[in-house]
Amino acid sequence: MAEIGVLGLGVMGRNLSLNLADHGYRTALYNRHYHVTEAFLRRCREQEPSWRRLQGFREMEDFVDAIERPRRIVLLVKAGEATDLTIENLLPFLDPGDVVIDCGNAHWLDTIRRERELRRRELLFIGCGISGGESGARFGPSLMAGGSREAWERIEAIWRDIAAKVDPETGEPIEGAAPGRPVSGGEPCAALVGENGAGHYVKTVHNGIEYIDMQLIAESYWLLKHLGGFSNPELAEIYSRWNEGELASYLIAITARILSQPDPRGDGYLIDRILDRAGQKGTGKWAADSALALGVPANALAEAVFARYLSSRKDERLQASRRLASVPVGRVDDPPGWSEQVRHALYCAKICAYAQGFQLLRAAQQEYGWRFDFAAIARIWRGGCIIRARFLNLIASAYQRKPDLANLLLADDFQSALHQGHPAWRQTVATAVLNGMAVPAMSAALAYYDGYRSERLPANLIQAQRDFFGAHTYERTDQPGRRFHFDWVGGKRETVVE
Amino acid sequence: MAEIGVLGLGVMGRNLSLNLADHGYRTALYNRHYHVTEAFLRRCREQEPSWRRLQGFREMEDFVDAIERPRRIVLLVKAGEATDLTIENLLPFLDPGDVVIDCGNAHWLDTIRRERELRRRELLFIGCGISGGESGARFGPSLMAGGSREAWERIEAIWRDIAAKVDPETGEPIEGAAPGRPVSGGEPCAALVGENGAGHYVKTVHNGIEYIDMQLIAESYWLLKHLGGFSNPELAEIYSRWNEGELASYLIAITARILSQPDPRGDGYLIDRILDRAGQKGTGKWAADSALALGVPANALAEAVFARYLSSRKDERLQASRRLASVPVGRVDDPPGWSEQVRHALYCAKICAYAQGFQLLRAAQQEYGWRFDFAAIARIWRGGCIIRARFLNLIASAYQRKPDLANLLLADDFQSALHQGHPAWRQTVATAVLNGMAVPAMSAALAYYDGYRSERLPANLIQAQRDFFGAHTYERTDQPGRRFHFDWVGGKRETVVE
Repeated sequence: MAEIGVLGLGVMGRNLSLNLADHGYRTALYNRHYHVTEAFLRRCREQEPSWRRLQGFREMEDFVDAIERPRRIVLLVKAGEATDLTIENLLPFLDPGDVVIDCGNAHWLDTIRRERELRRRELLFIGCGISGGESGARFGPSLMAGGSREAWERIEAIWRDIAAKVDPETGEPIEGAAPGRPVSGGEPCAALVGENGAGHYVKTVHNGIEYIDMQLIAESYWLLKHLGGFSNPELAEIYSRWNEGELASYLIAITARILSQPDPRGDGYLIDRILDRAGQKGTGKWAADSALALGVPANALAEAVFARYLSSRKDERLQASRRLASVPVGRVDDPPGWSEQVRHALYCAKICAYAQGFQLLRAAQQEYGWRFDFAAIARIWRGGCIIRARFLNLIASAYQRKPDLANLLLADDFQSALHQGHPAWRQTVATAVLNGMAVPAMSAALAYYDGYRSERLPANLIQAQRDFFGAHTYERTDQPGRRFHFDWVGGKRETVVE
Repeated sequence: MAEIGVLGLGVMGRNLSLNLADHGYRTALYNRHYHVTEAFLRRCREQEPSWRRLQGFREMEDFVDAIERPRRIVLLVKAGEATDLTIENLLPFLDPGDVVIDCGNAHWLDTIRRERELRRRELLFIGCGISGGESGARFGPSLMAGGSREAWERIEAIWRDIAAKVDPETGEPIEGAAPGRPVSGGEPCAALVGENGAGHYVKTVHNGIEYIDMQLIAESYWLLKHLGGFSNPELAEIYSRWNEGELASYLIAITARILSQPDPRGDGYLIDRILDRAGQKGTGKWAADSALALGVPANALAEAVFARYLSSRKDERLQASRRLASVPVGRVDDPPGWSEQVRHALYCAKICAYAQGFQLLRAAQQEYGWRFDFAAIARIWRGGCIIRARFLNLIASAYQRKPDLANLLLADDFQSALHQGHPAWRQTVATAVLNGMAVPAMSAALAYYDGYRSERLPANLIQAQRDFFGAHTYERTDQPGRRFHFDWVGGKRETVVE
């Protein structure tokens, strides 16, 4: 009998199956087109003996019957309707106590609904965010599970096996997994983060942070290239060096790799041939939607989403570039000094990116009744996933020391990093702005920082205006707890409201 | 018989009823608590003979029966469920051909649904955005109607009567309406803007622009006050002067009034006693939601919404202000020169605010099948509403000359204003950033401008990263129309996808 079933054999499903097999799990496979299953198994059998643990089925019923009860069935199908349809098709074959684990990119509200529906039928349901792309699924992803403790206990051991691992001493991901030879030991990047939709929500926030991080790196690249005048090999070298320090992270590492890649089709570098029109799959937008809905001022997140929107309007930009006034982009006098400034700016802005992500988590747990362990979430993001970064260790310890920290900006480590870095950050943004270079996320993060640390903001004027035109009332600094309306046109009477 | 009925006698309903009576319309009134109706009518009768045209009813059925058929019934009840409930209660008393006009702050998707439901019962439905607050409703609001032409023709004459008026020569609002003495002549700020939810969508965009405009003015106020060192009377004087030029607008005018208002409870100015915690009713958020949903990079809009969110976290800010590194705010050397710079920055950013609003309208008409006359929308915003501003005349003529203008930034007038103003705008943002003053909307607008006019953006790096970790593919600048994937880890093979 199989210990687990995987339904859906796209690249994520295939790779997760191989990962399960590498860890010794007998795995049943099903795909709605059987030829996909067959072709996959044929390739597997040719290559690696351990993959004989994978067994494919033409009929869904046989697939389900081949799994030991109570069953574990992982869904890796397209999020949305396809997931609902698949669950509906599965239901007749399931027995009470079986657990269905949706590893698709589901919206957390769908997961909340599905968990409720399956619970009514005495089935367990886990919505599990999975990050790390193809290679994460294959050699160790970050796994963010949402569901009941009972459901989690049914998959915990497997999930810890197949997840990415982090060295408990250094906090760095343990690399080196290869087909048939998974890494052993280390702290697994898998956890139950909360009930029902919590896992998919955490994954959405992960993706939101990923959007910001990528946009920030892109802005830093542009500033270094155009104002610093660095060549691609020099840029690659800069990012490699940054990857040794506090910025060390997967995205910085691959940026260095990307920038040093020659164009396989001709002279020059591949990066210079890639069209500047960014795509997206919508999870960054979900995170931004949620920020608006929950009242969380996640402006860098919104900017990162909008920057992709703007990038995709390439034709409009081309027209506009010929008509709108530009500024001559000047080279900075001291390129090495400039790269240091940009490094500080990037790190400070990155702290704000993560701060905004964790503020989203704080607000969401209120809204949806979850109870997040922020330190645990930071820990499972240290390996396997796209935003894995050395400084997640700092985030984990900040929340470990102080689980109710109001904002990451106030953690000691970050407070002092910001203290050290903010002058350079300001210079970087000012220089960009004066030279006509758009740095939407870097400047939004700075506005967030400056707004957040401002005891007073000019919102008093906004309240006065709202009271002027709409009698929306205001509070007074000298009479807390009461609301007032002023007769602005008459100019005489201030009345207490209620 | 009454020519029209008004259902819902909150301040908006009462004022709109008085406006109708001033224009000679016999108006039937209904409120779910009759004592409200009674009290209102008592006060009316004491004051002004024309208000005898208002007649109140205790029972909804009698109210409906008192209106001549086919009826016109204006709803001014709370948006959301209350509106649905009111319509449901009304339905038994209505006859085919009656028109119901919802002047509440409805979400356009609700209006689309309601119009469809009522059409099935042979009733006409108009969702009408109304702006101008209490005083607009009383003496002439801006009216943005959505519905069928047939429905519109039933209310057009009345709507044109009660709307704000603009002098056709100068394009300025005609002021001076008083109880019983409405202004006569002029171009009315009322129009059918499209089918079903179009009116409420246009109103939502109006409010989105209003949010940005208010945030920009608040930022300018803060920059003038703290970096320019101007006193409240000096600030009031500056805004009064600005109100003579291209910035002339209702919001600038009331800002000048607000800043010169002494505190009625003591020494000093009222503005300095108002708590800096901005409230909102959610329509700015709806506009930002829509920007995310429609792929419109409306970053200044999102920043304006987030700025209110951040302002409301006053306690957190207070804590943070004591812990996070700040910068000493320096006074500028040349305050008058500074105020000129800020003026340019405000105007340039304001152009971007309106550009983002109209980009939303462009995207929405695609999505919802409307066909907007952008010039007409700009014209009905010139009077009555909160964002009324002289420069809407420029917007109207830009769209009149070129209805398919890709973006307002590219209109001749704005192109040259931006050409003239952008160096000062850059200096303003750079100075703010270096002095630790948060200018989220002003800097977002600048990033929008710089991004929009950039033929190339660093989204090529984002695409490379996405292809690296997720095989999301990229396009090449030298091979348009095809998608590629590169084997980044192997570093050799670029494959054409599909």
